[in-house]
Amino acid sequence: MARSTADTGGHPWRERARPLRLERRIEFDGYEPLREYLDQVAALSEATQIFPNLSFGRTYVNLTLFAEEGAEQVGEALHAFARQADALLDTAEGS
Amino acid sequence: MARSTADTGGHPWRERARPLRLERRIEFDGYEPLREYLDQVAALSEATQIFPNLSFGRTYVNLTLFAEEGAEQVGEALHAFARQADALLDTAEGS
Repeated sequence: MARSTADTGGHPWRERARPLRLERRIEFDGYEPLREYLDQVAALSEATQIFPNLSFGRTYVNLTLFAEEGAEQVGEALHAFARQADALLDTAEGS
Repeated sequence: MARSTADTGGHPWRERARPLRLERRIEFDGYEPLREYLDQVAALSEATQIFPNLSFGRTYVNLTLFAEEGAEQVGEALHAFARQADALLDTAEGS
């Protein structure tokens, strides 16, 4: 059960309870990079069949990954999605 | 001041108070038409420089258009955006 970063699953998302979920808020410099990121997350969703709840305005995105109902832990698939969504962000910001 | 549909601005959005805003929820049959619609709304935002708050999951989108702070009415520009966002939906669904 041990993870290298046990509380977070190796990503900067926050785990919250009732209902159990992972959340992350991301700020963007403008609408264009935000749209690009949303497109990348959407492609990731289609590939993984994991669909976060997303809310966004002009310069921010909130992502929420809900655990399965009744689950006592956020599953590894959701943690993996979180890490992949973060990696997309690095690509968008870093190049 | 009279509009043909005074309460709604000629669209099916709901006006809510505190803070004053227009809201609409739309259900989709699947993720692909939802993504397509989000892209169209994003293009509309770039053209009008009006950026609704959007939240969505796999099969639904909630749009919220906030009135300017301190405004006593939702401005015509937001009503126009609402009608245009609806028109995009007709295109997506109807063809």
